[in-house]
Amino acid sequence: MVDILHRVGMKSSLDDVYKALATREGLAGWWTTSTQGDSKVGGTIQFRFSEDGRDIGGFVMKVLELQPARRVQWQVVDGPAEWVGTKISFDLKQEGDWAVVLFKHQDWKEPVEFMHHCSTKWATFLMSLKSLVETGKGVPAPDDIKVSNWH
Amino acid sequence: MVDILHRVGMKSSLDDVYKALATREGLAGWWTTSTQGDSKVGGTIQFRFSEDGRDIGGFVMKVLELQPARRVQWQVVDGPAEWVGTKISFDLKQEGDWAVVLFKHQDWKEPVEFMHHCSTKWATFLMSLKSLVETGKGVPAPDDIKVSNWH
Repeated sequence: MVDILHRVGMKSSLDDVYKALATREGLAGWWTTSTQGDSKVGGTIQFRFSEDGRDIGGFVMKVLELQPARRVQWQVVDGPAEWVGTKISFDLKQEGDWAVVLFKHQDWKEPVEFMHHCSTKWATFLMSLKSLVETGKGVPAPDDIKVSNWH
Repeated sequence: MVDILHRVGMKSSLDDVYKALATREGLAGWWTTSTQGDSKVGGTIQFRFSEDGRDIGGFVMKVLELQPARRVQWQVVDGPAEWVGTKISFDLKQEGDWAVVLFKHQDWKEPVEFMHHCSTKWATFLMSLKSLVETGKGVPAPDDIKVSNWH
């Protein structure tokens, strides 16, 4: 099992970061504008992505854990085969003026090329989260930063 | 042992990407302007970083492998304790109009918080490499993108 890890920090309160991770509106502001579903524990959230207006796939997450200002964890229940069964977590902590997010996308079966791609994409989406929380404006899909021919 | 993985693609020739990875001038254009040393196999390259004009540390890499338009590999021989002994590789391949880079920073002993930080920083530096190769201008340190209170 292999994991994608990231750390970002934003000049913000933990409450604001938590809101961006634990609500449909927050998630739509930095990951993908097409975010639907129930963001409570036990609920599922559907994240969809499109290109030139055409749906190109997405992920369904079951919300496993919500600890206000502390931690959000999901399990992937539908999406690309490599993602299904993996877990995604965001651990939050305050360091001075900074809200720090430790991100883990864990339990990939193999370090496939798609995992390399997702690692880079997660970094750009976490920078989008930082931008949303610090400035009020993220860069969610479909306007997300393209990192390669795989977008 | 745990690894940082990334994948970026740039509209470019493999030769241009290789030049940005295998020469002192190339590396100074996307990672850190303070790049010194001998970029031939067996040589060592010194990468330094500064903040407000003050040196804050860096890395010394021994060049293990140089395969034109194919692969560059280094071993970290000096720098932060967590980095020493780890290996960094860039594998290149052409996909249509795109030069694709598969990046690995491997053999970290533990998935420490600093590894999370370095994973995110590598993503932003690889986006700087993409920018250098596609537009002629990267964003190397000290003007690199800050991802947190750890910069």
